[in-house]
Amino acid sequence: MLKVGVIGATGYTGEELVKILASHKGIQVTSLTAKIDKAEKIQSIFPSLEGKIDMMCELPDEDMVAKASDFVFLALPHKISMEAAPRLLKAKKKVVDLSADYRLPADIYTKWYGAAHKDVDGLKHAVYGLPELNREKIKTASLIANPGCYPTSIILGLAPLFKEKIADPSLVIADSKSGVTGAGRRADMALSFGEVNESLKAYKINEHQHSPEISQELSKLAGSEVGLVFVPHLIPMNRGILSTIYIKLKRGIDTKEAVGLYKNFYKSEPFVKVLAEGQLPQIKDVRTTNFCYIGIKVDTEKGLAIIVSAIDNLTKGAAGQAVQNMNIMCGFKETEGLL
Amino acid sequence: MLKVGVIGATGYTGEELVKILASHKGIQVTSLTAKIDKAEKIQSIFPSLEGKIDMMCELPDEDMVAKASDFVFLALPHKISMEAAPRLLKAKKKVVDLSADYRLPADIYTKWYGAAHKDVDGLKHAVYGLPELNREKIKTASLIANPGCYPTSIILGLAPLFKEKIADPSLVIADSKSGVTGAGRRADMALSFGEVNESLKAYKINEHQHSPEISQELSKLAGSEVGLVFVPHLIPMNRGILSTIYIKLKRGIDTKEAVGLYKNFYKSEPFVKVLAEGQLPQIKDVRTTNFCYIGIKVDTEKGLAIIVSAIDNLTKGAAGQAVQNMNIMCGFKETEGLL
Amino acid sequence: MLKVGVIGATGYTGEELVKILASHKGIQVTSLTAKIDKAEKIQSIFPSLEGKIDMMCELPDEDMVAKASDFVFLALPHKISMEAAPRLLKAKKKVVDLSADYRLPADIYTKWYGAAHKDVDGLKHAVYGLPELNREKIKTASLIANPGCYPTSIILGLAPLFKEKIADPSLVIADSKSGVTGAGRRADMALSFGEVNESLKAYKINEHQHSPEISQELSKLAGSEVGLVFVPHLIPMNRGILSTIYIKLKRGIDTKEAVGLYKNFYKSEPFVKVLAEGQLPQIKDVRTTNFCYIGIKVDTEKGLAIIVSAIDNLTKGAAGQAVQNMNIMCGFKETEGLL
Amino acid sequence: MLKVGVIGATGYTGEELVKILASHKGIQVTSLTAKIDKAEKIQSIFPSLEGKIDMMCELPDEDMVAKASDFVFLALPHKISMEAAPRLLKAKKKVVDLSADYRLPADIYTKWYGAAHKDVDGLKHAVYGLPELNREKIKTASLIANPGCYPTSIILGLAPLFKEKIADPSLVIADSKSGVTGAGRRADMALSFGEVNESLKAYKINEHQHSPEISQELSKLAGSEVGLVFVPHLIPMNRGILSTIYIKLKRGIDTKEAVGLYKNFYKSEPFVKVLAEGQLPQIKDVRTTNFCYIGIKVDTEKGLAIIVSAIDNLTKGAAGQAVQNMNIMCGFKETEGLL
Repeated sequence: MLKVGVIGATGYTGEELVKILASHKGIQVTSLTAKIDKAEKIQSIFPSLEGKIDMMCELPDEDMVAKASDFVFLALPHKISMEAAPRLLKAKKKVVDLSADYRLPADIYTKWYGAAHKDVDGLKHAVYGLPELNREKIKTASLIANPGCYPTSIILGLAPLFKEKIADPSLVIADSKSGVTGAGRRADMALSFGEVNESLKAYKINEHQHSPEISQELSKLAGSEVGLVFVPHLIPMNRGILSTIYIKLKRGIDTKEAVGLYKNFYKSEPFVKVLAEGQLPQIKDVRTTNFCYIGIKVDTEKGLAIIVSAIDNLTKGAAGQAVQNMNIMCGFKETEGLL
Repeated sequence: MLKVGVIGATGYTGEELVKILASHKGIQVTSLTAKIDKAEKIQSIFPSLEGKIDMMCELPDEDMVAKASDFVFLALPHKISMEAAPRLLKAKKKVVDLSADYRLPADIYTKWYGAAHKDVDGLKHAVYGLPELNREKIKTASLIANPGCYPTSIILGLAPLFKEKIADPSLVIADSKSGVTGAGRRADMALSFGEVNESLKAYKINEHQHSPEISQELSKLAGSEVGLVFVPHLIPMNRGILSTIYIKLKRGIDTKEAVGLYKNFYKSEPFVKVLAEGQLPQIKDVRTTNFCYIGIKVDTEKGLAIIVSAIDNLTKGAAGQAVQNMNIMCGFKETEGLL
Repeated sequence: MLKVGVIGATGYTGEELVKILASHKGIQVTSLTAKIDKAEKIQSIFPSLEGKIDMMCELPDEDMVAKASDFVFLALPHKISMEAAPRLLKAKKKVVDLSADYRLPADIYTKWYGAAHKDVDGLKHAVYGLPELNREKIKTASLIANPGCYPTSIILGLAPLFKEKIADPSLVIADSKSGVTGAGRRADMALSFGEVNESLKAYKINEHQHSPEISQELSKLAGSEVGLVFVPHLIPMNRGILSTIYIKLKRGIDTKEAVGLYKNFYKSEPFVKVLAEGQLPQIKDVRTTNFCYIGIKVDTEKGLAIIVSAIDNLTKGAAGQAVQNMNIMCGFKETEGLL
Repeated sequence: MLKVGVIGATGYTGEELVKILASHKGIQVTSLTAKIDKAEKIQSIFPSLEGKIDMMCELPDEDMVAKASDFVFLALPHKISMEAAPRLLKAKKKVVDLSADYRLPADIYTKWYGAAHKDVDGLKHAVYGLPELNREKIKTASLIANPGCYPTSIILGLAPLFKEKIADPSLVIADSKSGVTGAGRRADMALSFGEVNESLKAYKINEHQHSPEISQELSKLAGSEVGLVFVPHLIPMNRGILSTIYIKLKRGIDTKEAVGLYKNFYKSEPFVKVLAEGQLPQIKDVRTTNFCYIGIKVDTEKGLAIIVSAIDNLTKGAAGQAVQNMNIMCGFKETEGLL
């Protein structure tokens, strides 16, 4: 049994992570910590975990976690993860970091997150944990930068077109709609029910901190710089991201060919489902699952592909994908704990 | 034109109050203040007021309000109102206080709100502003204690039975369900969308601060002490309170008689609608209106009346009723601005 | 591996049932049928089942189900179940019926459901499938009447008080709040988003078809006729029932004693959690789980207990409890598939 | 007092229309009809109208409406309006049709709505009722084709760029998000709370019946054929449309210039508000108002403008705009009844 610890267990992502880990047959959760007032049973903090796990959530104590665990998930805010990771890696633990701290080069990180990077060495070894694209590297990695929720939905939605050099990289428009848990579990009037319910808004156009991560990964796929326009929206629902993506095609394919291309590209993927021509995904298809559902429509007249990609932001967009990475790193069945 | 000021204009109640006042033909809004960082147009703070009013919301400044206005609404938290009211009253302004500060005797206030009362003199003159019961006193009052939202729904739901001495006062069970704006406009994780949506809870059983207000007013109606059990619930919707009330009857009447009794009791009331036998109210009937809808069913076998009472917590439960009180105090048509 | 069939697999309950069964280690789903236009993969009908099961949902065909399965769940509307069950029982299949058809004596059934009972013989052998009260009988039953969602929440909330003869049976007030899936998956304007969202209503006061089932089971526990007042409410959320129950006590116990009594009564139950004094359950604690959470407060002055009971209507209130019954009937671990 | 009738008063649009008309000082509602089972008070059908109007809603009877009214709103489904309008026009009534029947040439209408047009003569005289673009023609029109909800949000969002010949017409991407009332008031499982809540979907990509209307009006503004990609989405909220629009610019302007251009273009408009640089609209800004709020951001590097346009689908997107048209046609103040 692999001994697993979670640092930062009391956010929405932490809750989801503990729920998934509790049902995983190859591991044992051996430590949970969080910035809380006093140590408390995790199932008292999240009563929905009752019967699934019976364990204390302790105050932050990396040494304790390192001693108790062989594998550690960091469900921490950015800036904090890069302080915790180096010591765990030094102690030969494998680490999946769910924050943004290991996703970008130091200079770009500083530009978007407003802080100098404190673990440039770690950055060199970190692998971007999108299994559908980086599975081989993940297998041997000791530090995974688990992708952001928006990036996961957008990159999976575009990968086949860029890999096959069909998409024109000069302009990608990603219009994403996210549920509220994507913003974290915290007191904030802008996230209060009275402000969010019966409303809807676009925010941070081209200024969202996930933008450089999306650009970077798409550019790698395209082999050249991608021109990204990213517009996130806040939706009155708890969970889910639906990204509607618009991109010009360099050569004339129709919807049928595009669907075939996607089906082929993802044919061995356990968690990506490409819908048949004429079908489009909805959030309820993927809610609480680790799946990404993709629907495609090509406007042949305008040479434009419209891709609709749906995930659960807390599962495939965070905790589920983190466990998928652990499964790959540790030789478990990739779907273990996730179906 | 009556010159009207609002102190505390930036809560949900303040927003609703300004919206109603902006459409009132007999008054002019002459001052708005709130505890904000810097003075700002009220329609910038609440874009939904655009086109309805064009006016600055200033930082707190009672002297300015007193100078500019003849009539003042206090949409302040409790404990703060009782500091502002005395000076306004001294300056001969009429005041409607939407907080709890003038609803209870000093000793009971201290017990439930944890603070000594600072305006015992004002308390003596304050009139409880439930027009359906106290209209004559409201006409000549200079200080109105505007009722709480839960109390409004429960007292209106029970008044006919107590006034007619049909209800047994020994036990009143009020099971109330409220939308989230009832808790105010503020940053609080317990009010965040992710915590409230797709959930529901009872809270503060017999410990809610509206309990003594409900008991007090029902006891006045009954002519003897009423035994209240009050269980509020938080519901995933923005606006509205639905109270389901259970009370034993002292003499045998059936649903038809009860409905007749209620219809007669409220026959001249512009804002209370008693539904026909067999009908029950829902929140959408009263949302954004100043109405209270009441449905009644008598279980004759058990001698128990079940009364369902629905209001909008921000309108009849707060701002609408406050304007109704102003209308009565100032000789306007009682429905002015409210239909 | 036990071979299991589900008749009526395309309602909300059917979806939940298939989801649970797909993760159950002791069984194999061998047949799914529903009244649909044409046979279709169940994971196409409910994309959220993708990766969990890969199987056709066929048109209704009892013979096929009987041939393929040893154990059958009937997730059918009432009146239909009692036509299907006798033939399955005759073919020596074990059956859990999730409809109301086997919960009441024939005469009472006819009064509340408006139809003559077609399987009076089956009625005699049916066991009311509330494991916490009838576990021993369930073990040897071949036909289970799976309890309704409202009854489950109310009976579990009251059982300790009635068993211990502390509750006064003359008047039980159950004020229940349910999410919308409780009304089934169907086209009905009253269930449309525009009518339900931002609203709330009481309905069918003392006229809801679950009333006789609640009365019957509570009366059995009390040893005498119980006087039930049952007021269901429709809440704008998908899943969950919270019942707030009011009952007079025959002897003076306080909250602490009551909590102790409940904790003792349910001490061996895997799916009932009694909360500590001062705590109350909320729907999010039990959402998608098979748990019933119970909070208790005694108003000693009035000799009244207030019990708040929370379940997920589709899990403990339907599909989860049905599987719990199967586990008991077939000797599986009672929690298998349910944690 | 202008005598006004509403045919089709019992949909969501009809309810909103009656609510607005009831507060309009220049008119009197003299007839209401709808396809209902029996004549009934409109305030019994929509209790939220209580106190605002007291009037029967009759069964369909055009002659009665024509006799009672000088001005008629048709809040009917498409295909039905074009049967009712000719007779009313012949009787010299002024008509605002809220359906799609008079918005498109007959051949395009047939292609998108699947029916031959029955009033080709009426089509010739109908004026597209978007006051911000067609105010002069509306003044003298007798038949108004009231714009669709999606088209209103998109056309207002793009008009300044096309009028000023800054936008490149070859590709307009409109990603629109709509609340559920946009789909009408009817029994449909796809619109039920259980299906819509906690979900989100794109639908009818480039196949929505509002597409030709949007293309047609934008092409008129551009002076050449516009290449439209229109992707509507269904959002779990009752009211509101937010359209995020992406368009290439033909010459280099930045956000500041664009905002200035929009502010100038709409400077005299009572119901369009252009937000300051850096601000974006949200649905709660416009909910239940007749306003369109517009926020603009230019990505100068890519020469792309991103416009976010927010309206209430039932007010500016339907009933409010219909009354605005009536105000213009009949010489009332344009904002009468709408603030």
